[in-house]
Amino acid sequence: MGVCTAAVLTSYKQALELREFPIPEPGPGEALVRVEMAGICGTDVHLADGELSIPLPVILGHETVGRIEKLGPSLERDWRGGALSTGDRVAWASSVVCGECYYCRQKRQPTRCLSRKAYGISYCANEQPHLRGGYAEFILLRAGTAIFRIPDAIPTAAVVGAGCALTTVMHGLERATVTLGDVVVIQGSGPVGLAALVVSLQSGASKVIVIGAPQSRLDFAKEFGAHGVISVEKATTPEARRKLLFDQIGPYGADVVVECVGRPSAVPEGWELVRDGGKYLVLGQYANAGEVLMNPHTITRKQLQVIGSWGFEPRHVDAALRLLENPHWQSRFASEVTDRFSLRQANDALEKARLGNGGKTVITP
Amino acid sequence: MGVCTAAVLTSYKQALELREFPIPEPGPGEALVRVEMAGICGTDVHLADGELSIPLPVILGHETVGRIEKLGPSLERDWRGGALSTGDRVAWASSVVCGECYYCRQKRQPTRCLSRKAYGISYCANEQPHLRGGYAEFILLRAGTAIFRIPDAIPTAAVVGAGCALTTVMHGLERATVTLGDVVVIQGSGPVGLAALVVSLQSGASKVIVIGAPQSRLDFAKEFGAHGVISVEKATTPEARRKLLFDQIGPYGADVVVECVGRPSAVPEGWELVRDGGKYLVLGQYANAGEVLMNPHTITRKQLQVIGSWGFEPRHVDAALRLLENPHWQSRFASEVTDRFSLRQANDALEKARLGNGGKTVITP
Amino acid sequence: MGVCTAAVLTSYKQALELREFPIPEPGPGEALVRVEMAGICGTDVHLADGELSIPLPVILGHETVGRIEKLGPSLERDWRGGALSTGDRVAWASSVVCGECYYCRQKRQPTRCLSRKAYGISYCANEQPHLRGGYAEFILLRAGTAIFRIPDAIPTAAVVGAGCALTTVMHGLERATVTLGDVVVIQGSGPVGLAALVVSLQSGASKVIVIGAPQSRLDFAKEFGAHGVISVEKATTPEARRKLLFDQIGPYGADVVVECVGRPSAVPEGWELVRDGGKYLVLGQYANAGEVLMNPHTITRKQLQVIGSWGFEPRHVDAALRLLENPHWQSRFASEVTDRFSLRQANDALEKARLGNGGKTVITP
Amino acid sequence: MGVCTAAVLTSYKQALELREFPIPEPGPGEALVRVEMAGICGTDVHLADGELSIPLPVILGHETVGRIEKLGPSLERDWRGGALSTGDRVAWASSVVCGECYYCRQKRQPTRCLSRKAYGISYCANEQPHLRGGYAEFILLRAGTAIFRIPDAIPTAAVVGAGCALTTVMHGLERATVTLGDVVVIQGSGPVGLAALVVSLQSGASKVIVIGAPQSRLDFAKEFGAHGVISVEKATTPEARRKLLFDQIGPYGADVVVECVGRPSAVPEGWELVRDGGKYLVLGQYANAGEVLMNPHTITRKQLQVIGSWGFEPRHVDAALRLLENPHWQSRFASEVTDRFSLRQANDALEKARLGNGGKTVITP
Repeated sequence: MGVCTAAVLTSYKQALELREFPIPEPGPGEALVRVEMAGICGTDVHLADGELSIPLPVILGHETVGRIEKLGPSLERDWRGGALSTGDRVAWASSVVCGECYYCRQKRQPTRCLSRKAYGISYCANEQPHLRGGYAEFILLRAGTAIFRIPDAIPTAAVVGAGCALTTVMHGLERATVTLGDVVVIQGSGPVGLAALVVSLQSGASKVIVIGAPQSRLDFAKEFGAHGVISVEKATTPEARRKLLFDQIGPYGADVVVECVGRPSAVPEGWELVRDGGKYLVLGQYANAGEVLMNPHTITRKQLQVIGSWGFEPRHVDAALRLLENPHWQSRFASEVTDRFSLRQANDALEKARLGNGGKTVITP
Repeated sequence: MGVCTAAVLTSYKQALELREFPIPEPGPGEALVRVEMAGICGTDVHLADGELSIPLPVILGHETVGRIEKLGPSLERDWRGGALSTGDRVAWASSVVCGECYYCRQKRQPTRCLSRKAYGISYCANEQPHLRGGYAEFILLRAGTAIFRIPDAIPTAAVVGAGCALTTVMHGLERATVTLGDVVVIQGSGPVGLAALVVSLQSGASKVIVIGAPQSRLDFAKEFGAHGVISVEKATTPEARRKLLFDQIGPYGADVVVECVGRPSAVPEGWELVRDGGKYLVLGQYANAGEVLMNPHTITRKQLQVIGSWGFEPRHVDAALRLLENPHWQSRFASEVTDRFSLRQANDALEKARLGNGGKTVITP
Repeated sequence: MGVCTAAVLTSYKQALELREFPIPEPGPGEALVRVEMAGICGTDVHLADGELSIPLPVILGHETVGRIEKLGPSLERDWRGGALSTGDRVAWASSVVCGECYYCRQKRQPTRCLSRKAYGISYCANEQPHLRGGYAEFILLRAGTAIFRIPDAIPTAAVVGAGCALTTVMHGLERATVTLGDVVVIQGSGPVGLAALVVSLQSGASKVIVIGAPQSRLDFAKEFGAHGVISVEKATTPEARRKLLFDQIGPYGADVVVECVGRPSAVPEGWELVRDGGKYLVLGQYANAGEVLMNPHTITRKQLQVIGSWGFEPRHVDAALRLLENPHWQSRFASEVTDRFSLRQANDALEKARLGNGGKTVITP
Repeated sequence: MGVCTAAVLTSYKQALELREFPIPEPGPGEALVRVEMAGICGTDVHLADGELSIPLPVILGHETVGRIEKLGPSLERDWRGGALSTGDRVAWASSVVCGECYYCRQKRQPTRCLSRKAYGISYCANEQPHLRGGYAEFILLRAGTAIFRIPDAIPTAAVVGAGCALTTVMHGLERATVTLGDVVVIQGSGPVGLAALVVSLQSGASKVIVIGAPQSRLDFAKEFGAHGVISVEKATTPEARRKLLFDQIGPYGADVVVECVGRPSAVPEGWELVRDGGKYLVLGQYANAGEVLMNPHTITRKQLQVIGSWGFEPRHVDAALRLLENPHWQSRFASEVTDRFSLRQANDALEKARLGNGGKTVITP
């Protein structure tokens, strides 16, 4: 079927290389998808820097929207049971799980599946069928991938703008629920922080405060509906931030604090922002950024619930797309997509994302 | 009414002093109780050593059984609603809460009541009415104390043997529930560890392993029904203990791990013993023993639930007494009471408890 | 202090009588409140008709806003801990519980307190201090009443418009939670139905359909944000309503159905509107309206959760007032108050409420 | 491979017929199993009487233990991931679900899978491959069946004695949990009632009372550990039974009541046995036995949780087998198997089961 260009990470801390791969014929249950937009996730920067070990060379890109180019035999329906046809615009869960292991079956923790693999992260581009990442003209989806036909009303930029941040938050805030009337604090104003803001508001939080930087991201947060923001550039110590926060929410702390930062030091700081008996969701520590001094006495004394959440399941993509049926959130998330690059500019795109000072960077091959 | 002798902590790291106090007349809602048996809790050793700040001088003793000497006006019923009379054998919740503050009312976390005070810990013996601790001939219970008439079938030694350990565990394992079939690991073989073992077994755990020391305590654990024990004296590294544990429960870890140790380093070690998606109850860090290096990435990646629990409520005393209606557990907990001292031997009692190598030490004034 | 006029129900199905009572001096913990607005609840109509047995004569009125006329000794703070002063505008929980019985203490179901009494329902007006209902110039609040100072920004009409419907729904939907993305169906478009609509929307429901009548109430529902309405006057059979509903939400039923009707037949009809494994909240059956044929096989086969909820606790008043800090909901609930009557017109007010074809009827003494 | 004899229900209320079918070769993922013991479930009696519509002719039998005769290609591991070999003794989940429909995927209620089929119930014996029920020498398990290798220590009679009753209860009491210290009442002393008794005890119930008949079944209940039994033959009215019950558990009712009767009238009777705010599990209404008069006001006023549960998932078979690793429960459940018949005596077996006055009836082909 010809060849497909892809931007490949061949060595850590090196520029991505453009390579060509044969376009494969989809087998049973598989789908060949023409990429329309591929988001650059903060995780991609970590991956390019070698902070997680991945099987190089890898075609990066795990938050992608495309159109069905060709469906393999027997693939007729999307995850929701709707008909799937050539030309349909689709998104998909970035991981495929086995459904059979200890975690999938016995403990119902499929995000911890013992043989889980993620597009754009866990597949070596040297191995057949090569096209397993979003920074490419085409991607070949494995049988068993949870594919979602995107309703026409939802813009592509809204889906990529929400990205894996929204699905990750859907999972995290399912585990550490925000309840009607809760006061919520979000540590971090990146895409995960903004998504946590949206889901908290939508779940009935009475007040949501976002702590982050730079100012441009805090402006986004206000635009998205934050009741208050605190700049870590202006309030440069945990004590200063805590004081500013308690001025806004009272002296006991928040019912729920969501960590969306990724730096270990955010966690002990965050514990001091939760009211006793409250919840602390550790959502941002996807990469292993090392140890930090913490006092476990705090967990006992404040009788905290400290909850972790890893990745997401197909139903969280379903939930994210449902939330995006709301035109208000569509336009907010679409507004996050501020920088578009071609596949040939993939390195520029990655560099822009590394700066982290604007909205979302995407590749439109 | 005469005078009452009490053993008083006057300075940290100094011997307790015997002092005499006038025996007060109980006011409305109050009860004067003649102490029958006062347990020496591990916390008492920490208090005597000055590891928590308390209003010296203090009459120690917060796990006590006694008989009603005199009831104040209008006190006619115990917490369960049963009639209360002079001569009744009683236990009581060691803390009294205000019922009105932010934590009592709005967040329903009464153990975090902003004005909570505990017998044997938070009352200065210089202040009226002096008798607020168990190491004494008499104790005067405040109005609002949750008093429980002890059913005749339950021996005093069973109640004190279970002590505040069992009530603390009742609260902790209400927050981090053990479910039918769960594999449970207990870190620590002191009274809290044994109580966690009992409650786990009673809640339907299919396997409970206790990690602790010395051997005499592990023998208790086996006697109480542990399916396996691991000695921290023999397996001296976290890695060695983990290996021994996984030989017994398989390669993924336990559904629930209960920390009953009190040393901060137990917590990061314990996180590695929980299966992904499992629960970790931080129950032993009552005293502030300082910080330890921990990696919050572990919480995210393993999607743990790390749960704290502080003290207990009256209903946990109720639950503990109900469990003690079971003759099997009565004899087990009573067997923990191995060393009895008179009030005059209070310092010997405290020293014996400090060794931590036997069963429970008690004072029988 | 003079005399107070009140509208008293002296015999079932008879006109209310205006009577005069001495205005009492508030004792310790009590508050004398000058009534500003008293809502006429649908329950008042049932009470007047003798559908529940109450200790006649009774001053009706259990959803009331007033101003503190005089505070009794030692009453200085409201339920939230804020200062309380003469002249403050207040609302209060309509019931007072004992805090000591089996349900209050052991089972933490205070709405089922064995000696719970409700203003406007459970107090005989012949007994001291007489003034225990809202259809009066003054009401005397017992010590232990949960009083809430109403923030200045919240209009009185919003509080009474929300009435006991909103607090009842706060309790009900705490027991049968609506989760982000849920499809919710409300049976009934009275005040409870509208409040359930608001709380469902606020909790993140993706779609809420209201089934009710007359058209004026369905118009309210649309105004309040219902995604769809179904008229029981137009669709006159359960089958017809079910068909119209499933046209809007798909063939499996709703995640949560909230019964706010009060007629027993609504319940078996409603079970058929829930998806398998979904929740059915029986909220409207406050009065005993008798038996109906139901098939318990439906509960097993559809593995339903059928949940009841009775009254509310002080924290649900707290939650309701917090929700009313939102100006959007303030104006919606205030708009429900369509008919105002003086105390002398109390019977007209009750007759208007009986018609049930408009908004909320209130007395402004 | 020769022929296999099976007992076939060809017409409702007619004797089973012995028929011969060709023994099929197992295809990919399939397993041919030689039946060792097939339990006669009370449901089989209902099926034979035509109380549920099934695709006659049907080979009955949905609680079966057998040995692997031949494994189809690619079937190498059981549900738990252990190796599976010819000759292994196995049990299996009686239903196979699609994993793709609205209930399987979106709502995670696989027992309500839209295309769920159960061995011994949903397969027409006229259709290939015929052998889909337990009353036969062989059964052919579909690809996707959750097969469990039975640990050697567990007797076959224990597994069949526990039968689908124990797995059904595992699901039901996962939905309506029994918590440490709960007082539990079981309505019904058949296999489901006894299994509910066992799971309640094992989950930490402090007291379990069984209401049922005949006396022989109540004797089983006492043997299994019931703290009390009430005979519906002696106490012939709901009022009489309620009185006897409350004499044993106090005047408020049980924390959890489990309905294991199957007659609709048990449900309204049972609601009066639950304390306010308690749980009522409707577990026995598998067959549609019609409507009964019920008062929904009871659900509101007592703020009950009425919970249904349908069938079970593979993990409940897993849990049941884990419970059966306990020798105590092995011998209890094995003791329930009192009557053994050959396949030729299948009609005698069914008649014995219909009487319901003894233990479990089984066929050992």
